[in-house]
Amino acid sequence: MAVCYQSSFSTFPSTDLSKPNISLSTNFRCNLSFPSSKTLITEPEPLFTLVKSFAPATVANLGPGFDFLGCAVDGIGDFVTLRVDKDVHPGEISISDIHGVGNSAKKLSKNPLWNCAGIAAIAVMKMLNIRSVGLSLSLEKGLPLGSGLGSSAASAAAAAVAVNEIFGGQLSVSDLVLAGLESESKVSGYHADNVAPAIMGGFVLIRSYDPLELIQLPFPEEKELFFVLVNPEFEAPTKKMRAALPTEITMSHHVWNCSQAAALVASVLQGDLRGLGTALSSDKIVEPRRAPLIPGMEGVKKAAIEAGAFGCTISGAGPTAVAVTDDEEKGRDIGVRMVEAFMEDGNLKASAMVKRLDRVGARLVSSIPRGQMSSESLFDSNTHKAIRQMTWCAYSLSLDVAMAS
Amino acid sequence: MAVCYQSSFSTFPSTDLSKPNISLSTNFRCNLSFPSSKTLITEPEPLFTLVKSFAPATVANLGPGFDFLGCAVDGIGDFVTLRVDKDVHPGEISISDIHGVGNSAKKLSKNPLWNCAGIAAIAVMKMLNIRSVGLSLSLEKGLPLGSGLGSSAASAAAAAVAVNEIFGGQLSVSDLVLAGLESESKVSGYHADNVAPAIMGGFVLIRSYDPLELIQLPFPEEKELFFVLVNPEFEAPTKKMRAALPTEITMSHHVWNCSQAAALVASVLQGDLRGLGTALSSDKIVEPRRAPLIPGMEGVKKAAIEAGAFGCTISGAGPTAVAVTDDEEKGRDIGVRMVEAFMEDGNLKASAMVKRLDRVGARLVSSIPRGQMSSESLFDSNTHKAIRQMTWCAYSLSLDVAMAS
Repeated sequence: MAVCYQSSFSTFPSTDLSKPNISLSTNFRCNLSFPSSKTLITEPEPLFTLVKSFAPATVANLGPGFDFLGCAVDGIGDFVTLRVDKDVHPGEISISDIHGVGNSAKKLSKNPLWNCAGIAAIAVMKMLNIRSVGLSLSLEKGLPLGSGLGSSAASAAAAAVAVNEIFGGQLSVSDLVLAGLESESKVSGYHADNVAPAIMGGFVLIRSYDPLELIQLPFPEEKELFFVLVNPEFEAPTKKMRAALPTEITMSHHVWNCSQAAALVASVLQGDLRGLGTALSSDKIVEPRRAPLIPGMEGVKKAAIEAGAFGCTISGAGPTAVAVTDDEEKGRDIGVRMVEAFMEDGNLKASAMVKRLDRVGARLVSSIPRGQMSSESLFDSNTHKAIRQMTWCAYSLSLDVAMAS
Repeated sequence: MAVCYQSSFSTFPSTDLSKPNISLSTNFRCNLSFPSSKTLITEPEPLFTLVKSFAPATVANLGPGFDFLGCAVDGIGDFVTLRVDKDVHPGEISISDIHGVGNSAKKLSKNPLWNCAGIAAIAVMKMLNIRSVGLSLSLEKGLPLGSGLGSSAASAAAAAVAVNEIFGGQLSVSDLVLAGLESESKVSGYHADNVAPAIMGGFVLIRSYDPLELIQLPFPEEKELFFVLVNPEFEAPTKKMRAALPTEITMSHHVWNCSQAAALVASVLQGDLRGLGTALSSDKIVEPRRAPLIPGMEGVKKAAIEAGAFGCTISGAGPTAVAVTDDEEKGRDIGVRMVEAFMEDGNLKASAMVKRLDRVGARLVSSIPRGQMSSESLFDSNTHKAIRQMTWCAYSLSLDVAMAS
């Protein structure tokens, strides 16, 4: 039997009742506190009986951007199917099933309080003040756990977006990131460098947490950017990876990494892939401590660069290695070389994939409007949302095919 | 009598014989070594008998951009007048006179080997392999010494550009920055965060020194950016300012400053003045150590923000305080408040000025073509350079007026 959790306090206000458009040049600011002066949200009715959402994998840190930079990767991630469920007590959520790659289904709890998707879903239900509707959630893991690809963040992001959209999408991007952060803080630490890009897409800079300020860094539309993601069969020793971080940093290393992070941001905004790659490879603080803990990583990085990648580093806390290139075919060759290097230098089996930059972030991929509401009436009553929904549905067709292949 | 210095070794090659256009989105790379495989430069003839150049003041560090970010400030800087002088031994340079604000003329050496302008001029003469022409240089200081406004860098930049242009402008921007760096390293340390923006204009990120890699960060043309520069009558204790720097930095401060520097770069490129100001004010590593050494600085910063500045910090190593705004008139009000705060909190007299971002960098402001060469023949033989020269001359008219006022 699924474990439920009652989401609604008597009157839980939203952190930010306005919903800014998702603009690529917008800075998102959201105060973490809940000032009493804010208008309390009226509980919204569900617009759909079922929604299915997708949230992409993410690469955090990006070398010198440790703990404040991340980006989303297209075509690989987690799905959440969320339905209005009369068998679930109003104001509560239940996780009905978890399935997907590897042993994630076995390892993940169905208790929403102990599940990334569940925690984020509850946080959004609180923000929306949901008291009258019960929900059940099905989680489909496309990402392996502990791979360094933002697995927990993808689940949280997909769940947050699903809950928000089933009730008409009233919350802002900042709110959704805050809900995701609530989840991340319980499973992997209070950092948004996975969950923010998982929700927003593209490259995101976490400028501050209190208040939460996120800067979206648009990579030029006309330019191609591919990530070569090589995941070895190796469980990164999380405690060791964290313990490996230095507590003190020399001034010269600080200035170096700082300038490389700044250069990385400039390269992203200017569409300079060579510059981006150089910055990605340049970390002198975290990567040199963590790479030796992943067998073969140093050789893998060398192999990627020799094979023509613009740059290479550890994705998140590893063990996945990430390299960047501007050509999908070349990306495959780079991937082959990196897989070989993992075997030669680290005696580890590994698999490679080449994925585009995800520029969209978490989104609906399909939905069923409530019984009494036809497609026409939905369109008439809420043109903007209907168009958005149609776009997402169209997008989902190709995405679902890609994910199934 | 002026002290001369023989510039030319037997065959001193240029570091880079190609001269790329100064493009706002270009990354400049230049190897500091002089590989023997490079073609040696043929000694160029002077195109002018006299040139006058200007290089702007600069604000280095910009808060979290310590040691790798700087920008140029319009309408205040140093002038160099350079002439072909038959009384100076071929291949040598002489400093004929130094005049300008404060006691700079008394404090600065006329020995080119000990003068910022002289050292940079010699470096450029070396790069151009000048052996047959003697030069004399007159330096007009528009910037006070030790103010934190890049006084030495402005002299070096003006001299480097003057020597390059009198011989037809064959060197690249990177070469000129390298020449300026040679000067800076002898007077204030091997850092390019003043001299690079003094030469290139706008915001410049120093990505690395070996090889030298500079990233120009164009601030959107359509946006206004004003600097309020408030210079107190106070000599910053250079040794103390340097000694105040921490040698070790905590991980959390590193991540904070790194993300702020990255946000600053994003704000510049996206033309987000509010974001730029916030980042400027955000340094947790250098400013907190240095500000207490400048009487009143903390109060001045507070006063600037209260008066509506987007942000405020120490310019370079101080003692000048710099604030940013988008409105000249508001800038004047902010300046008044900052001057008052220097008196109230630090018992220091101070003067304020409001200046635009300089987007051009060091340039010729006037020139006299060689006697036998008419304007027409110069135009015919070298259209591009003639047009550039005319543009600069036109520019100089307004600039000279502005500087004289």
